[in-house]
Amino acid sequence: MQEIQLRARPEGSPKPSDFELVNWVSPTLSNGEVLVEVACFSLDPYMRGRMDDAKSYSAPVALGQRMEAGGAGRVVESKSDILQPGDYVFGMTGWATHAVLSDKLVRKLDIAPEYLSQALGVLGMPGFTGWFGLNEHGRPEPGETLVVAAATGPVGSMVGQLAKRAGLRVIGIAGTDQKCQIALNEFGFDHCINHRKFENAKDLRREVSQYAPNGVDVYFENVAGPVLEALLPMLNVHARVPVCGMISWYNAGRLGGDALTEALSAPKIWRTILVNRLSVNGFIISDHWDQFPTFLREVAPLVNEGTIRYIEDVTVGLERAPETFIGMLNGQNQGKTVIKIR
Amino acid sequence: MQEIQLRARPEGSPKPSDFELVNWVSPTLSNGEVLVEVACFSLDPYMRGRMDDAKSYSAPVALGQRMEAGGAGRVVESKSDILQPGDYVFGMTGWATHAVLSDKLVRKLDIAPEYLSQALGVLGMPGFTGWFGLNEHGRPEPGETLVVAAATGPVGSMVGQLAKRAGLRVIGIAGTDQKCQIALNEFGFDHCINHRKFENAKDLRREVSQYAPNGVDVYFENVAGPVLEALLPMLNVHARVPVCGMISWYNAGRLGGDALTEALSAPKIWRTILVNRLSVNGFIISDHWDQFPTFLREVAPLVNEGTIRYIEDVTVGLERAPETFIGMLNGQNQGKTVIKIR
Repeated sequence: MQEIQLRARPEGSPKPSDFELVNWVSPTLSNGEVLVEVACFSLDPYMRGRMDDAKSYSAPVALGQRMEAGGAGRVVESKSDILQPGDYVFGMTGWATHAVLSDKLVRKLDIAPEYLSQALGVLGMPGFTGWFGLNEHGRPEPGETLVVAAATGPVGSMVGQLAKRAGLRVIGIAGTDQKCQIALNEFGFDHCINHRKFENAKDLRREVSQYAPNGVDVYFENVAGPVLEALLPMLNVHARVPVCGMISWYNAGRLGGDALTEALSAPKIWRTILVNRLSVNGFIISDHWDQFPTFLREVAPLVNEGTIRYIEDVTVGLERAPETFIGMLNGQNQGKTVIKIR
Repeated sequence: MQEIQLRARPEGSPKPSDFELVNWVSPTLSNGEVLVEVACFSLDPYMRGRMDDAKSYSAPVALGQRMEAGGAGRVVESKSDILQPGDYVFGMTGWATHAVLSDKLVRKLDIAPEYLSQALGVLGMPGFTGWFGLNEHGRPEPGETLVVAAATGPVGSMVGQLAKRAGLRVIGIAGTDQKCQIALNEFGFDHCINHRKFENAKDLRREVSQYAPNGVDVYFENVAGPVLEALLPMLNVHARVPVCGMISWYNAGRLGGDALTEALSAPKIWRTILVNRLSVNGFIISDHWDQFPTFLREVAPLVNEGTIRYIEDVTVGLERAPETFIGMLNGQNQGKTVIKIR
């Protein structure tokens, strides 16, 4: 049994030496606990925040502790009344081959073993994030225009597909031409823009304008940085901005640091909110688990019948998690990033 | 008949020479129009924005045109089927002794002549702004803590008094000790802080913290700048920020200019919105006139019985409007700023 621990807090981008693969010995189970053999776990941008000790919505990972992650696997030992060996579950296994979890903190999965990784992405937290944020805070109306970045990621692709179904014009932003092709061909976006082709926010804005002649009504925010700078002046009166992430700012040294060079000032943001009567709502999906059953009821059938599609980037081997994570932060993934243990 | 015109666009703070008092000759009335003899008109911070030609929610005042204002007065000549000479009305009279207005764009007043100025403040746009913003976007709950700046102004005093009635702890921020006394004694705020006693946002924050041991749930935003910088880190999870103005940024050269020295970065704002799941909603009260009758029905009786109180700073004489306006932008007013013609 093995796990990956946080060895050092990164300054800026994480490097492989910030992590360490170590052997792990399972403790004796207490009542209500199960030992889970991890089949796969998820790598997500939010984990970058956990590596800092800045105040956030969750405590940081302590140095020398296992990196956090949601994972899916099989119960191999149980002191729980409600879970038996052989059951498949989702829980916060962390970056590891095995995890001891309380039966109160895992969710039993009704997914065939070969599709277990769906519980990490399209039918897990990221898919739920897209569904909730779009419906609750995006309040989409037919005929409106929506922009979402990280378009082929598990959140962005869910947002885009649901918005298309709701009758919106959907514009994706992604970091490679290949991702843009995926957004168009696989996920049915109307347009997708490779933001790396543009020198600055202004040029990116000009390109978005071509596809959004009537402005933007919903900007689903998961990247911030230059994309926010490009989009802000394009937002229509009464536009909605659900805010669920800001990956382009996660590596800017201390989060919210002043070392940024973007021409995006606090007064500019505040003034646009006022002048265009924006509705800007931050949300953290873990506040809303009560709506997860509704999400599954609505979206799982669409996934099973292939109407809602998804893409996974699977890397095999626990030891490859750090490099895969670093690559994901640099945009080298195309869909949901998954580590399979074997 | 006289009016005050915009003579020059100010760089930074307006100066008297940006305005000009000129004689005015009433045009012949067209059908549906009335000539109004202005009794009083309102001076409001938003007018500063109208003096710039930056994109905003309303067109700027053109050079050589009458400065805009809401005013109340008596119809003295009418080509309208619905208004007779002697009727009292509210409309966009501008800074002037007389105005020609369409009967479609004025509101007949049901206020005794000696209280006409109520239509400019407590029972006009500012009072309505406070009532709407607090209820619609502030969503106050008993036991919560609210902070509002410009506490003795017509918006802030309405917000504070309504929040007290809703069972909140109400903290005002104002620019003089005298205003703070008014907030406490006249408007019943729980606490009021003179922000000019503090060197920087951090010191102001420390002071607010003493009165808000459980953090801040509603920050009614009408000033921005250092007060926003002080408050942002104090906002609780799920706090609401109705945004109806940002007076401290109106004079910062071009609105949203980058010349600001506050340690308030775009990433800091965006990150707080995400981490604390804020709900930030800009609003412009003119989008919501459909709710004005509800406001009047609810609040006018409270004003008449003296439960909701208000303060007016009355200056007599059209020619004194520019200096009074400049003084108001510098915080020299205590309540609603009103120009009475005589």
